[in-house]
Amino acid sequence: MSPGSPLLLPNGAYVFQKLQDFLRAQYPQFGYKEVITPTIYKKSLWEKSGHWDNYAEDMFSVQGRGATGQTENAQAGEDEEFGLKPMNCPGHCLLFWGEGELKSYRDLPVRYADFSALHRNEISGSLTGLTRVRRFHQDDAHIFCRPDQILSEIEQTLKFVGMVYDTFNLGPYKLLLSTRPEEHYIGTLEEWNRAEEQLTTALNNSGREWAINEGDGAFYGPKIDIILKDATGKEHQTATIQLDFQLPQRFDLQYQASPEELEAGAVSAGDKNIDPSCRRPVIVHRAIYGSLERFMALLIEHYNGSFPFWLSPRPAVVVTLNQKPELLEYAARVQSVLAGVLDPSHSNNAQTSADFKPTPRQLSAIHLPIDVDSSARQLGKKLREAHNKKYNHIIVIGAEEAKSQTVRLNIKNQPNDGAVREVITEVLGRPLTEEDELKGTISVGMTIEEARRYFLALVERFL
Amino acid sequence: MSPGSPLLLPNGAYVFQKLQDFLRAQYPQFGYKEVITPTIYKKSLWEKSGHWDNYAEDMFSVQGRGATGQTENAQAGEDEEFGLKPMNCPGHCLLFWGEGELKSYRDLPVRYADFSALHRNEISGSLTGLTRVRRFHQDDAHIFCRPDQILSEIEQTLKFVGMVYDTFNLGPYKLLLSTRPEEHYIGTLEEWNRAEEQLTTALNNSGREWAINEGDGAFYGPKIDIILKDATGKEHQTATIQLDFQLPQRFDLQYQASPEELEAGAVSAGDKNIDPSCRRPVIVHRAIYGSLERFMALLIEHYNGSFPFWLSPRPAVVVTLNQKPELLEYAARVQSVLAGVLDPSHSNNAQTSADFKPTPRQLSAIHLPIDVDSSARQLGKKLREAHNKKYNHIIVIGAEEAKSQTVRLNIKNQPNDGAVREVITEVLGRPLTEEDELKGTISVGMTIEEARRYFLALVERFL
Repeated sequence: MSPGSPLLLPNGAYVFQKLQDFLRAQYPQFGYKEVITPTIYKKSLWEKSGHWDNYAEDMFSVQGRGATGQTENAQAGEDEEFGLKPMNCPGHCLLFWGEGELKSYRDLPVRYADFSALHRNEISGSLTGLTRVRRFHQDDAHIFCRPDQILSEIEQTLKFVGMVYDTFNLGPYKLLLSTRPEEHYIGTLEEWNRAEEQLTTALNNSGREWAINEGDGAFYGPKIDIILKDATGKEHQTATIQLDFQLPQRFDLQYQASPEELEAGAVSAGDKNIDPSCRRPVIVHRAIYGSLERFMALLIEHYNGSFPFWLSPRPAVVVTLNQKPELLEYAARVQSVLAGVLDPSHSNNAQTSADFKPTPRQLSAIHLPIDVDSSARQLGKKLREAHNKKYNHIIVIGAEEAKSQTVRLNIKNQPNDGAVREVITEVLGRPLTEEDELKGTISVGMTIEEARRYFLALVERFL
Repeated sequence: MSPGSPLLLPNGAYVFQKLQDFLRAQYPQFGYKEVITPTIYKKSLWEKSGHWDNYAEDMFSVQGRGATGQTENAQAGEDEEFGLKPMNCPGHCLLFWGEGELKSYRDLPVRYADFSALHRNEISGSLTGLTRVRRFHQDDAHIFCRPDQILSEIEQTLKFVGMVYDTFNLGPYKLLLSTRPEEHYIGTLEEWNRAEEQLTTALNNSGREWAINEGDGAFYGPKIDIILKDATGKEHQTATIQLDFQLPQRFDLQYQASPEELEAGAVSAGDKNIDPSCRRPVIVHRAIYGSLERFMALLIEHYNGSFPFWLSPRPAVVVTLNQKPELLEYAARVQSVLAGVLDPSHSNNAQTSADFKPTPRQLSAIHLPIDVDSSARQLGKKLREAHNKKYNHIIVIGAEEAKSQTVRLNIKNQPNDGAVREVITEVLGRPLTEEDELKGTISVGMTIEEARRYFLALVERFL
């Protein structure tokens, strides 16, 4: 019904959103501010940005059905043609320009982040899984900075990339610098040289392996691509950092120049329309995941389906030994405490009960999608299924657990075994014994509250 | 460039996102799971759902530019026509149907939540501010339930509405039940009577004022609208709860019936295509805010621009007495501690410094957009501007504060004064003195860490 537009069921949406939330939680320390921008813009905007011509077949066109006279009683010509956005940059240029008075050199850099859905009309033969789609989301951002700020912005961005990839235990990756094409570029030779010099310094300072792709930059600016090697040695282009001298000209973006800039003299040759007391910002297009959909595909392979707990749509399943009412009730209690749904200050707050009085939960509350398998099937079958579904924890409960109000955690499928051991030792306040590790898997009894604390510690450490 | 599609700058996006995050934090206790669905669907889907004909002029049509042969080298006819979605329901029907095997009566209710951008081609003359736009986001959800679950689902939803509106201190509101139209309705008389009876019971149990709009329901089901009165007495339709007997038929949604349902006998007259061992779920369309854009407009009026701290894009501004380097440095420190950006375990982590080593922040971290005004203007001008911008707190710092590492909070524009006093008393561990409340505003000195704790307490209490 929508080829190339993924439909994400709850588990997929959960991973997607954790990825988004993770970046959002990092944005303040890197100085990004999120913005919300339209999905469709008039054709004239795309003509201004150059996309209508240069990105032609890859764009979808949008029209009010009235505009085409398609329906009865429609006002034909009510609206001109729109383009469905394939990129956020033109919208961000409008924001930079429209955010009030002329910005001063002191206001820069301005960093806009945007998770908007984007559409690119890839030919149907090229669509594959989540890696090549028509509708996707980037962890997109545009930095509007002064030419002399390029170095520090690129350094910060490379550190950001490093921090994110380390968290997912991705890598090694290499950095690839594409420089000025010999012909057909915009801006002056001096601007390019200064920019490439700053990129080179940032790459040297990064301490990472990097290479150069001489002359392979776009006509509008040099760029750095991040090439990730997966477990099988296959290379993926994920993050990208691109300088852009062109869009600021096309959108006539300016800022009040600094005394030093004014002293240094002339603005770009071929860029006559600028006020003599102003300069044009440089735009840095950058994405760290790249496409979230593609990054998800990569992580599924990388973790082989066993996601780390903090990102896992299947952090734990509670498996009941039988279907006795008191056991089902205990299973529900374990589920809601571990999920963080039960408010301990209320004796009865199962959400199905008539006297359930909801109270607002913190925006910072940590909720986990804990499942229950209380089906009438054999325990062996239930465990096999839980194992195949790659739950991080399998929690079997019977009469004994219900009586003692405890749970026994079987720890499965954790990417970082050593650190998990550390956390559990901390929470229990004692080292793991041989009994806890029979048959090569950790299986430890504890109270429900201890289990919740252990889960919170896993989330907080990104394990 | 996109009439009717709001562009949200960082402050607007901040409020928008807090509203979204607030609902997301409540979803687990009400059993909703979020999903992610496409923006465009083939025309044939909209024909199936009935929107292509019944919602005709309000829909935008989408085509690959290749499909129309608009561009050179384009493969004409590569894709059929698409519709830009005005509603999420058809997509959610696909998910319900596509989520694996036939669902059992035990699997219901299934509750999908979705914050997707929606587009409706309102005629240009009707567009106004954020209240009537073409591109907007609903806090949309669809509940797929058994007919006998209608009562408890409606009760839960009404409680959810009440909890949300109480948090924003909105109301009073009244509930309006629209019942079966006399002619042209689908489903049996019995189904309608049973549904309306459950809605009536839920309304009676809600303890709220409600009224009936006889015969004003849609042909596909009865509904409850929430009519909110604002401070000026003006009424706004915000939340809505609509039953739908039609879409489950159009999308042939079925579930394995329960023994009781099978015993009760026949399925709907006029609905022949259903397996005898199955029944059709009822769909509940529901939104609590309604359109987030419109709800934002309503809140701006409601708070008269002075947002409660937890929702405020201007929670505090640090105003410097002068521009001495040591004072600017202290201002930056105050800002980063209060914003939650400074990681106390690192001595130097200003994000602009070259040896800045970023560490991943918790997804649950509470970041606040604290501003600094270190401009060279007169203090009086700076304070006036801060006051006009309705910052919740104005923090003036000079040599004295820098020396003693303290801050003096001037508490302004807090919707709930009494509770704020309570919180500050708790954090300081002493009651407010007369000196703290000179000239009618609270002005209290404390350490930076105390101020951060006070801010966190305001957020946690939704003040």
